Amino acid sequence: MNTTLPHWVQLFHLLIELGGTLAFAMSGILAAARKRLDAVGVFVVAFITAFGGGTLRDILLDQRPFFWVRQVEWVWVVLGLCAVSMLLLKKHHFAITERAIEWPDALGLGLFAATGVHQALAQDMPVLIAVMMGVVTGVFGGVLRDMVCNEIPTTFKDRSPYALCAFAGAWVYVLGWTLDLSLPAAVSACVLVTAGLRVLSVLGGWKLPDWKHE
Amino acid sequence: MNTTLPHWVQLFHLLIELGGTLAFAMSGILAAARKRLDAVGVFVVAFITAFGGGTLRDILLDQRPFFWVRQVEWVWVVLGLCAVSMLLLKKHHFAITERAIEWPDALGLGLFAATGVHQALAQDMPVLIAVMMGVVTGVFGGVLRDMVCNEIPTTFKDRSPYALCAFAGAWVYVLGWTLDLSLPAAVSACVLVTAGLRVLSVLGGWKLPDWKHE
Amino acid sequence: MNTTLPHWVQLFHLLIELGGTLAFAMSGILAAARKRLDAVGVFVVAFITAFGGGTLRDILLDQRPFFWVRQVEWVWVVLGLCAVSMLLLKKHHFAITERAIEWPDALGLGLFAATGVHQALAQDMPVLIAVMMGVVTGVFGGVLRDMVCNEIPTTFKDRSPYALCAFAGAWVYVLGWTLDLSLPAAVSACVLVTAGLRVLSVLGGWKLPDWKHE
Repeated sequence: MNTTLPHWVQLFHLLIELGGTLAFAMSGILAAARKRLDAVGVFVVAFITAFGGGTLRDILLDQRPFFWVRQVEWVWVVLGLCAVSMLLLKKHHFAITERAIEWPDALGLGLFAATGVHQALAQDMPVLIAVMMGVVTGVFGGVLRDMVCNEIPTTFKDRSPYALCAFAGAWVYVLGWTLDLSLPAAVSACVLVTAGLRVLSVLGGWKLPDWKHE
Repeated sequence: MNTTLPHWVQLFHLLIELGGTLAFAMSGILAAARKRLDAVGVFVVAFITAFGGGTLRDILLDQRPFFWVRQVEWVWVVLGLCAVSMLLLKKHHFAITERAIEWPDALGLGLFAATGVHQALAQDMPVLIAVMMGVVTGVFGGVLRDMVCNEIPTTFKDRSPYALCAFAGAWVYVLGWTLDLSLPAAVSACVLVTAGLRVLSVLGGWKLPDWKHE
Repeated sequence: MNTTLPHWVQLFHLLIELGGTLAFAMSGILAAARKRLDAVGVFVVAFITAFGGGTLRDILLDQRPFFWVRQVEWVWVVLGLCAVSMLLLKKHHFAITERAIEWPDALGLGLFAATGVHQALAQDMPVLIAVMMGVVTGVFGGVLRDMVCNEIPTTFKDRSPYALCAFAGAWVYVLGWTLDLSLPAAVSACVLVTAGLRVLSVLGGWKLPDWKHE
C-alpha cells in the first residue's frame, strides 16, 4: 500500500517500524535475561514480544501469511539482535537499555496500533472492534512476553497508561479514516497521539486510579 | 437460527446468554480485583473470561467473524460492567458476589457447551470432538482468565466437577442431535443436565477422586 | 501421502508416531501429577502436550481439520493413557517414567519436526519459516504444558539442547527436500539427526552457554 507514497514517507515509516520492532524485541530480551533464560528462550521471547501482537491480530482477523512470513528478513534481524545481546549485554546495562528503548517503543506502539485499526477497518469491522485490534497489535506482544516469563502482564497492573495510549491513538486513526484523511496523515496522527501521550505519562508519572476496594 | 422459534424461547435463550456472559465477566473482574489489576487489566480479563472460550472454539473450528464481532453490543455490556464494578465493588462484596454468580454461571456453562457442540456437529466433526468443543466453549474462558492472572487454572485442580458437568451436558446434546430433537429441546436438555449437575455438585460438595500417588 | 510407501515404512512411521505421542502425553501427565491436578487437568495437560505443537502449527499455517480431528482415535489413546496413569502411577514411578520416555520422546521430536517442516515447505514458505514450524511442532506442546502448569517453559531455561536438536534436524529435512530425496529418506535423516543429537546431549550432559551478564 506504500508504493505510491513519496520516498521520504516510506523511509520514515520504515524507520519507525524498525525502531519499534527492535525496541519490542529488546524488551523481550531484557525480560528473558532477568529470568536467566537460555539462548532458545531468549530468541522465542524476543520473537513473541516483537511479532506476537501482530500475529494474534492476524489470527483473530484470519489473515495469512503473517507479516514475518512475508518479510522473513525481520526474523533474521531479531535473531541477530539476540546474538549480539547475549554476547554484550551486562547486568548494569539493563536499566539504561530499558530507558533507551522507551522512545522507539512508544513510536512503535503508535505505528502498530494504526496498522491494526487499519486492517480491521479494511475488513469492515465495527469501529470498537477495530480499536481493540489496534490495541491488541500494539500491546499483546508484551502481554505474551510476560505470560511466557510466568508473570502477570505488566500492562495489566502497573497503572501506567500504555494500552490506553494505544487506545486513544486508535480512536484518532478511526477519526482520520472517517474524515477520509490520506493514509500517511492518519497514521502520523495516530503515532503522534499515542507516542505523545505515552511520553507525557512516563515523564509526568501519570497513574490510572487504583481500586478502592478496601 | 432462532428466527423461526417462538418469542418466549428466544427470550429465554437471551436471558440465559446474558446471565451467563455477565457471570463469566464478573468472575474475571473478581479475579482481576484480587490481583489488584488496573482498569486495563480488569477489562481484558473480564473480556477474556466472557468471550475467550467461544473465541478459542471459533479459532479451532476456523469460524469468523467471532460472536463479539457480529454483536458488538456485548463488548459494551462487559465494558459497562467493568466500569460499574471498579466504582462500586468493595472487598467485603467479593464472597457474596462469587456466590451470587454461581447460578447464572451454571446456566451459562450449559448454554455455551450446547453452542459449541452444535457448531462442531454442524461441521460434521466426530462426536468426541464436538463434545470437546462444547467443553472448550464453556470452560476455557475461565482457563485463560487464570492463566493471565498467573494461576494454575482452578478447573484443573480444585476437583469440584465443572468441566465434567459441561462434558455430561455435551453428550446429552449429542444424544438430542442423534434423536433429531428440535433445537430448543436439545439445548434445554443440555442446559438442564449441565446446570443441574453443577448445582448438585456445589450443594453436595462433590469432589473428583484425588491422586493416590504417595 | 503414505499410501504408495512400502508397508514396513508405514509401520515404522506409525510406531515412532505412537511412541512420540505417548511419550509427550506421559510427560504432560507427570507434570500434572506433580502439581496434583485433578482428572480434568490431567487430561487437558496430557492432550495439550501431545497435540499442542501440531495444533499451533496448523493455526499458524491455517490448516484444518487438525490431525486429532481427522484421526480421533488418538484422542481416545491419550484418554486411556490418562485413566491408566491415574490408577497406577505412584510417586516412586515418576523418575523412572521420566527416563523411560526420553527415547521415544527424542524420536517423536524428530518426526514431528519433519512433519512441521514438510507442511510449511508444501505451502511454499521460506526455509527459515519452515524450520521454525518444525521446531514449533516438536517443542510447543511442552511449552504449553509448562505454561498451563504455571511454570516458565523448561525448554527455554534448562540450557539442555532440545529445541536446538529439532532445529538442526529441521535444517536436515530442508536439505533433503532441496536435494529431492524421497520422503522416507528425508524424514529418516531428520529423525536420526534430531534424536541422535538429543540422545548425545542427554548422555553427555551438554549445556548451552549461560548468560555472563554479571
